[in-house]
Amino acid sequence: MPTIDHRGPEFRKLALDVFAKLKPVFGAEHVIVYPSSGTGAWEAAIVNCLEPGDRVLMFETGHFATLWQTMAKRLGIEVDFVPGDWRRGVDPALVEQKLREDTDHAIKAVMVVHNETSTGVTSRIPLVRKAIDAAGHPALLLVDTISSLASVPYEHDEWGVDVTVSGSQKGLMLPPGLGFNAISNKALKIAEQGGMRRSYWDWHEMLAANAKGFTHYTPATNLLYGLREALDMLQEEGMDNVFKRHARHGEATRRAVRAWGLEILCEVPEEYSPVLTAAIMPEGHDADELRAIILDRFDMSLGAGLTKLAGKVFRIGHLGSFNDLSLMGTLAGVEMGLGIAGIPHNKGGVDAAMRYLEETAG
Amino acid sequence: MPTIDHRGPEFRKLALDVFAKLKPVFGAEHVIVYPSSGTGAWEAAIVNCLEPGDRVLMFETGHFATLWQTMAKRLGIEVDFVPGDWRRGVDPALVEQKLREDTDHAIKAVMVVHNETSTGVTSRIPLVRKAIDAAGHPALLLVDTISSLASVPYEHDEWGVDVTVSGSQKGLMLPPGLGFNAISNKALKIAEQGGMRRSYWDWHEMLAANAKGFTHYTPATNLLYGLREALDMLQEEGMDNVFKRHARHGEATRRAVRAWGLEILCEVPEEYSPVLTAAIMPEGHDADELRAIILDRFDMSLGAGLTKLAGKVFRIGHLGSFNDLSLMGTLAGVEMGLGIAGIPHNKGGVDAAMRYLEETAG
Amino acid sequence: MPTIDHRGPEFRKLALDVFAKLKPVFGAEHVIVYPSSGTGAWEAAIVNCLEPGDRVLMFETGHFATLWQTMAKRLGIEVDFVPGDWRRGVDPALVEQKLREDTDHAIKAVMVVHNETSTGVTSRIPLVRKAIDAAGHPALLLVDTISSLASVPYEHDEWGVDVTVSGSQKGLMLPPGLGFNAISNKALKIAEQGGMRRSYWDWHEMLAANAKGFTHYTPATNLLYGLREALDMLQEEGMDNVFKRHARHGEATRRAVRAWGLEILCEVPEEYSPVLTAAIMPEGHDADELRAIILDRFDMSLGAGLTKLAGKVFRIGHLGSFNDLSLMGTLAGVEMGLGIAGIPHNKGGVDAAMRYLEETAG
Amino acid sequence: MPTIDHRGPEFRKLALDVFAKLKPVFGAEHVIVYPSSGTGAWEAAIVNCLEPGDRVLMFETGHFATLWQTMAKRLGIEVDFVPGDWRRGVDPALVEQKLREDTDHAIKAVMVVHNETSTGVTSRIPLVRKAIDAAGHPALLLVDTISSLASVPYEHDEWGVDVTVSGSQKGLMLPPGLGFNAISNKALKIAEQGGMRRSYWDWHEMLAANAKGFTHYTPATNLLYGLREALDMLQEEGMDNVFKRHARHGEATRRAVRAWGLEILCEVPEEYSPVLTAAIMPEGHDADELRAIILDRFDMSLGAGLTKLAGKVFRIGHLGSFNDLSLMGTLAGVEMGLGIAGIPHNKGGVDAAMRYLEETAG
Repeated sequence: MPTIDHRGPEFRKLALDVFAKLKPVFGAEHVIVYPSSGTGAWEAAIVNCLEPGDRVLMFETGHFATLWQTMAKRLGIEVDFVPGDWRRGVDPALVEQKLREDTDHAIKAVMVVHNETSTGVTSRIPLVRKAIDAAGHPALLLVDTISSLASVPYEHDEWGVDVTVSGSQKGLMLPPGLGFNAISNKALKIAEQGGMRRSYWDWHEMLAANAKGFTHYTPATNLLYGLREALDMLQEEGMDNVFKRHARHGEATRRAVRAWGLEILCEVPEEYSPVLTAAIMPEGHDADELRAIILDRFDMSLGAGLTKLAGKVFRIGHLGSFNDLSLMGTLAGVEMGLGIAGIPHNKGGVDAAMRYLEETAG
Repeated sequence: MPTIDHRGPEFRKLALDVFAKLKPVFGAEHVIVYPSSGTGAWEAAIVNCLEPGDRVLMFETGHFATLWQTMAKRLGIEVDFVPGDWRRGVDPALVEQKLREDTDHAIKAVMVVHNETSTGVTSRIPLVRKAIDAAGHPALLLVDTISSLASVPYEHDEWGVDVTVSGSQKGLMLPPGLGFNAISNKALKIAEQGGMRRSYWDWHEMLAANAKGFTHYTPATNLLYGLREALDMLQEEGMDNVFKRHARHGEATRRAVRAWGLEILCEVPEEYSPVLTAAIMPEGHDADELRAIILDRFDMSLGAGLTKLAGKVFRIGHLGSFNDLSLMGTLAGVEMGLGIAGIPHNKGGVDAAMRYLEETAG
Repeated sequence: MPTIDHRGPEFRKLALDVFAKLKPVFGAEHVIVYPSSGTGAWEAAIVNCLEPGDRVLMFETGHFATLWQTMAKRLGIEVDFVPGDWRRGVDPALVEQKLREDTDHAIKAVMVVHNETSTGVTSRIPLVRKAIDAAGHPALLLVDTISSLASVPYEHDEWGVDVTVSGSQKGLMLPPGLGFNAISNKALKIAEQGGMRRSYWDWHEMLAANAKGFTHYTPATNLLYGLREALDMLQEEGMDNVFKRHARHGEATRRAVRAWGLEILCEVPEEYSPVLTAAIMPEGHDADELRAIILDRFDMSLGAGLTKLAGKVFRIGHLGSFNDLSLMGTLAGVEMGLGIAGIPHNKGGVDAAMRYLEETAG
Repeated sequence: MPTIDHRGPEFRKLALDVFAKLKPVFGAEHVIVYPSSGTGAWEAAIVNCLEPGDRVLMFETGHFATLWQTMAKRLGIEVDFVPGDWRRGVDPALVEQKLREDTDHAIKAVMVVHNETSTGVTSRIPLVRKAIDAAGHPALLLVDTISSLASVPYEHDEWGVDVTVSGSQKGLMLPPGLGFNAISNKALKIAEQGGMRRSYWDWHEMLAANAKGFTHYTPATNLLYGLREALDMLQEEGMDNVFKRHARHGEATRRAVRAWGLEILCEVPEEYSPVLTAAIMPEGHDADELRAIILDRFDMSLGAGLTKLAGKVFRIGHLGSFNDLSLMGTLAGVEMGLGIAGIPHNKGGVDAAMRYLEETAG
């Protein structure tokens, strides 16, 4: 595909089409596309509506929440980072309590990772919103959906999210290279008068240009073509069907993990991630050795435990264009790997998953 | 990939490279590439070394043997077509007996399908050769390897085959469009003075041109590029490893079929095909209904029973670039399909296959 | 693009679509697609409606007519091959005279190459047909359009052609690998009772299968996909526009050749080929040296003089997806090459072509 | 190409390879790759070594210098923006004078666009460096090479540049999506203690991660593959040959423009851009009408005059993988367009360019 002129009419048509098709995926009226990684989209969210010295409330739900916290600090934000054990999502009751205590409204934003790829735990955004409202607190709600968008149900406007951060490389099945911000009117208004000094990430210039089908700097045109195709594919399958497919594969995977006698990292059933499941290794066994064996024998790469979970868990992904049979192949690879690696486990995980998929096959 | 000039030096280099790399795959000194289907390669074998009115000996091992017989008749050959039940390969004892009875050597060729895709049965070519020799008969041995080449061990020269017929679309993992003939010196000599009137399929012009890196008509250049790449991939994996991989997947598949309580169509263990397995449906159940359910629920297309096996068997392929996990996915699809379709069967097929793959992984 | 099952419904849809879209390109009711080179399509034409010992009338218009004659002879046909100087097409008056002399109708066919790639001369098929009719002779008219189809106006049915032979690699802009026969009802009837022993090339089995969207052997599926796309592109541009484009480029090229003071090989203006122009080198200068210089300096490969024209002419192609500016680049390459090679010539060829293209730009 | 795991060994190998091959292209020891547009790379340069309130010296050489100035202001920088007529590069004498006047060294950086795509003028970076040194001034030298890198000779370290800004979409022949910073040790040291609050664009984290073959956020992996290929292609052709090719095409283009009797926008021969040439329209004629005609008739898109040159110039690009014949096609399109549009001009531009290319063909 030759690179097209990003000032010409063909690009304009492509851009307007893509912007329109992105809205239902986020459930949002305003969506911005950056040539950047998802991390860049985080930075965009922060610099547009927060200022150095602002306080924000965050929760240690896993590796990516920790990274976001580091970025916020580097940009001069004071982060109230509630520690966590990486086995559960954001606690709405704690959100409400923290905000009630903040009687002078020093906290400007609550920042949450929707789906923690490092743990397989999903935070319940509508409950977080309800908690903020119950506290009668004006804080903005910023949500990272990098690993959940287009895989897990999400409604930016309806759920009252102020900034949704996302990227191209997970549920949209594209290479990395595009970052997204969906933005509420409240956040837009705050950004108009506030935020940090900024140029590349500035929302208002982008929205003004996008409305006309342009961008105020050279866009990653080839990824935009891919994005249009991905959005068409999602629309064709139907977003609800996509969500059901992932949820069903999540349940099948958890049945396999339980049948093997392994523990699921996520402790709250309502927070099980539909896009990946992390399983805890039996005491005294190294997850990385298991992963190496499975890679070597079956050419399959499982997700590693990150930082404080290193060696302690392995992660089974079930996102993207997965189908029932590729999931069965994946689980078979894990079950055979457990056997070869000599990890204590029960057989029958593949069988359990297969029974469930058979019963629920549509 | 732009189409290159087939009279230029770049094509010459490609062609010589491809011709050289084809030899070890056939185990043959002389290999010809036609722009044609595999059926064209059959016709080439016949018109180069047989004449109208010649008698040949063939065996009804399945659908493709039957098609080859039809073609031979249309080209004026008298075919002694030994009937069969599609559950076993060519019987070497019968070959010897038939040839011994042909005391005046009216039979000019024995024509065998190496691997019957319609049945999952492989005929043992070395034993057929031995039978011809034991009978002291000068008949040529013509072998169709369209579905076995580069998947099942094969040695044209060493096994004393006179013409090996093949195509691009199975073990070479290419689109259809190339036909092959590997040729013995004996067959070449017969073709020099005999065979039918021919031009397109004529061996000698082809060999003369090929030796210089040319072809005497426009070749399917883009397929030749693909062929070079496929040959390089086979060489990198190692032919022996390719053969072992298919044989291992065949055994795993048969273990699954047996665990389900279904009968394997092939009755002779020494003749099990390493590239596909046909399973017989229980009396009163239609294989095509099962196949339709599996296609609908799991987006997987199993091979149908052809002509006289229609509705009675389904075929599980394990050729091409298959790995352990895609085989597990395939078998899971069958097992779940059997359940959904209400076919009487035992669970445990996937498990049995998985145990075998686990034990032999490495 | 993965290879699809050629017995499934998706292939059926593709095949029926392709067969329907081919008809207007040939201007024919019956068109057959072979997995073969164009040479294979020649053989198909011969074996379906001629028998060994049949006489045919052919004309030495160039290299490809000569090759076709060789093939016919090898298939047992007696060829009345009228010699020629490669500078003009088939002479209709001579056709009429030869056929009038053949009072007992021993001549079964007149075989003509529509566009001779080796010379840049196009034979006028409607005049040849008229000559046959004027002689009141029942001979079939067989035409090779391998290098003219979809580039030069052609009407199989309307012009009374009996068999049109073609291939995928020129005007259809595909890789080589597909051969075509368009067939009149008269030829079909003759083939029913006559022709040579045949299987692969047999028209009736093909037509019967094609009518249902199948082929009676494995087709070159990937080329069929490409063919559908090529046919859609032709339809979108409009066949008449395609023809005009080539004709206009032909005229521009000839103006350049004349301005350089070189002679055009084709001596009959009504027979100028719209797809290529052959220019004669000045006495004492070698065309292959010029071609080598142009390849080396400008990375452009001109067509060589074939057999009896070797070293004496170079050929400038203007077919496929050429536009005005790529033609100007081509002619500039030739003009600069003539200068560098020290070939006596006048400057101004590029200019002359440019004036013409400017005047006629639409 | 499937997206690879950016935490795995395969990515590590790719990244280290790319980083190593980028160094000679910039002539720099430290090069950073961002998932961003070129504009993002500008922002990176500013936020790493300048602070709000800092003064910088810039020159209005064209559209992109103006944009860079706007960005700097938005980030809080005070810009001393020397007005210009868009027909010449940065005046080294003026640089020296301005810096000499800045006796208290308030100016922290001189920011220059190497090649102005909007004008076809190249600023002479070594002379700018000399001017800074002559003034004995410590200002950093920041250079935008977005449209010149890998097309025009450039030596970051040798020329004493402090930050070189670039992007993937011009001389590297890739889609947009990667931004680059090459960095001097002096700039690195300043960034260590200074610069603005930043996270995404921070040099030190990037360099630390890159040194190990990682990036501290998800990289645009697929563009990195393309980048490696582009760097290999440049290396194979040889950077000097690439530079010569562009310079030669620039000279040929200017000869055509002069032969047409049009004025070249760039007034300083030493500053002619080797990658594009802007030609001034005769008074009373609209460049955009000419461009529309050329696009319509010849499907060729010329560059428009931007902002203050709108309608007054058209731009002929000669960068990327252009060869002699595509340049001839381009110039022919312009010459024919001038005729069709009725713009007063002399014929002979194509001829003049052709003579030059012929004489200098190697």
